[in-house]
Amino acid sequence: MDPDSVAKAFVEHYYRTFDTNRAALVGLYQEGSMLSFEGEKFQGAAAIATKLTSLPFTKCAHTVVTVDCQPAGPTGGMLVFVSGSLQVDGEHHIKFSQVRPRCFGPI
Amino acid sequence: MDPDSVAKAFVEHYYRTFDTNRAALVGLYQEGSMLSFEGEKFQGAAAIATKLTSLPFTKCAHTVVTVDCQPAGPTGGMLVFVSGSLQVDGEHHIKFSQVRPRCFGPI
Repeated sequence: MDPDSVAKAFVEHYYRTFDTNRAALVGLYQEGSMLSFEGEKFQGAAAIATKLTSLPFTKCAHTVVTVDCQPAGPTGGMLVFVSGSLQVDGEHHIKFSQVRPRCFGPI
Repeated sequence: MDPDSVAKAFVEHYYRTFDTNRAALVGLYQEGSMLSFEGEKFQGAAAIATKLTSLPFTKCAHTVVTVDCQPAGPTGGMLVFVSGSLQVDGEHHIKFSQVRPRCFGPI
């Protein structure tokens, strides 16, 4: 599987999980993971999952528009950059972008 | 200087260079650098500078709105994520976002 296909499959899985079962996102982070979210930083899988599950909406739907990936680090990691739109609780779509660094190799 | 201040200073320098002397951006990339630009990939400082200087506009002005940075890699590198707006040749502002991985330590 080429790196772009791996990145796209990961992105699809990540946002499907986000939109259907946010608590399960904990399994997609490690202890060394850091989330920067609107200026705040959260360190470690548990803190990240707590932040993501406490976001004040009940329904959300991500629409991914672009996925770019690059090799990152010597151990086969990837950097994945995503942009798209997000609909929260049936309101207007808002734009989002997110980057997923995986500089330290596979999850 | 704390990492956030370093990131902000770098971002300011990068976009001031982009907006006033695009050819000088070559000095801000290395041979191992990769640029993903609207789905295309460019490897190495020379190829990246060629792409950036051949963009079909003469004037551009970036307005940076957010800068987020995280530590990346074991050698003091940083991942810097930027969003903002961009005005090209005096036309309407468009949104942009960009990530600068520096997983392999200082430039």
